Amino acid sequence: MPRYFGTPPGVHVGQQFIDRRELHFAGVHRPPQAGISGTKAEGADSLVVSGGYSDDEDHGDYILYTGHGGKDPNSSRQIAHQTVEAPGNAGLITSMVQTLPVRVVRGRHSASPYAPAAGYRYAGLFLVTDFKPAIGVDGFTIIQFRLDRIPEQDEYIAAAPGERDPAFVSTVVTRRIRDSAVAREVKAIYDFTCQACGISIEGFEGRRYAEGAHVRPLGKPHLGADLLTNLLCLCPNHHTQLDNGGLFIRRDMGLEDRLGVGVGELTFKKSHLLLQENAAYHREIWKLAS
Amino acid sequence: MPRYFGTPPGVHVGQQFIDRRELHFAGVHRPPQAGISGTKAEGADSLVVSGGYSDDEDHGDYILYTGHGGKDPNSSRQIAHQTVEAPGNAGLITSMVQTLPVRVVRGRHSASPYAPAAGYRYAGLFLVTDFKPAIGVDGFTIIQFRLDRIPEQDEYIAAAPGERDPAFVSTVVTRRIRDSAVAREVKAIYDFTCQACGISIEGFEGRRYAEGAHVRPLGKPHLGADLLTNLLCLCPNHHTQLDNGGLFIRRDMGLEDRLGVGVGELTFKKSHLLLQENAAYHREIWKLAS
Repeated sequence: MPRYFGTPPGVHVGQQFIDRRELHFAGVHRPPQAGISGTKAEGADSLVVSGGYSDDEDHGDYILYTGHGGKDPNSSRQIAHQTVEAPGNAGLITSMVQTLPVRVVRGRHSASPYAPAAGYRYAGLFLVTDFKPAIGVDGFTIIQFRLDRIPEQDEYIAAAPGERDPAFVSTVVTRRIRDSAVAREVKAIYDFTCQACGISIEGFEGRRYAEGAHVRPLGKPHLGADLLTNLLCLCPNHHTQLDNGGLFIRRDMGLEDRLGVGVGELTFKKSHLLLQENAAYHREIWKLAS
Repeated sequence: MPRYFGTPPGVHVGQQFIDRRELHFAGVHRPPQAGISGTKAEGADSLVVSGGYSDDEDHGDYILYTGHGGKDPNSSRQIAHQTVEAPGNAGLITSMVQTLPVRVVRGRHSASPYAPAAGYRYAGLFLVTDFKPAIGVDGFTIIQFRLDRIPEQDEYIAAAPGERDPAFVSTVVTRRIRDSAVAREVKAIYDFTCQACGISIEGFEGRRYAEGAHVRPLGKPHLGADLLTNLLCLCPNHHTQLDNGGLFIRRDMGLEDRLGVGVGELTFKKSHLLLQENAAYHREIWKLAS
């Protein structure tokens, strides 16, 4: 059976499950023990937040989730490093790059105020929006993922009446691009032209489109600043590549791909500067992961 | 004073205003009479939903909003065609292409269950996600816009403590890409390769990224189907261009830009077919608008 992404037919957000066996048969979370269901090739389709990791943070709409591996099953303490090669972690990174929706289940063990008092509760679909290798509270490398809840989009499910059983049409997923006031400023400076390739995307009657790309990502866990010195004006293709570990900025503002091959350089206007430390942070995160 | 996008400092979602004068001085909606504040060059920064158009639909999280023009101020009936050249309408299209956030205010006249009992209420920031020229209930052309509420993203506002007054950091905006199960299917068919240009975006360790592009948009007002026959596998750049009226599909599956110049052709696998009527719908919408 192929891996199923999205909320299974008949399951609703908030639904309670007594045990892992029930989660399995409902198709919400298949593995009997593992916290993450997934592989590098297919992506991860579900995970359980059980509070077993001391670095987890549950904010309701978003979760900082520690990846798989290196934990002592008895003491629940970290006793070894985590890697991005572990199938669960590799699966979550694939889900991030390919914007695959991940079913999130909260277990009763969680320290989170959103966790159920008993058993398990289906929390709905989330997107993996960031990850970061970090040193956990126990002194070992952990892989920390950021999961953002997908806003409900039930309206789209009814878009094709009669053509397909609505119950089998999966929930719609969104890719988030943070577009703040400063991001609009950097686009104005470059007149919607990509600093990496010079492309400017033209829409209706010549209106133009570009994206403000934060080099060190905004918000937790990266805490990058929403300032011009952390922003580039990029076309969607180069933005996607930068955000997904396929494009890196050298100290001399040259660009290289994931294999270290030079692929041009960034163009700058006099009124704009990218801080070295932000480019270095971006390089470091992906290097630490590999 | 440059046009201000985003929620002004000190204003909160749900805030009540007695009259247009109060809206003006709070910087929520500047024009004394017009329903839309904006121009083609700058984009639209705010609008008022007042229920004056019989084709408006307020669904809370999204609104179908009739553009400006052609209305008899006394009878509130449509007496002439609307055009995309009217500054308000042109501004909303610029806001759509450039993903600018639009402040939405609901007035008491609205037939909507979300409207206030008296005066005006600030409904927060929305994105213009679609538009459609249509024949209104009064028999004249109207420009119908779809506005989607931006989910709250307050967390990011605190991302750069001390570096900028948080009150002046605008709310973060997201660009939505509908990525359903069928969209994932079309990406698998083409192995994440763009049908327009053959590019495949590579991320971490060779993971690849592409987007499932609905030719006739999903949901209201377009009601496109979430089916393979309405989908293409595209790189983000070509997807953006297609969605914003800069790229069109000819009957022979050739591609042309907004000036009608040929720019290559779509590549198809044997297991995939785009319905002519979906490509025709997409061409027609933008042609009707211009």
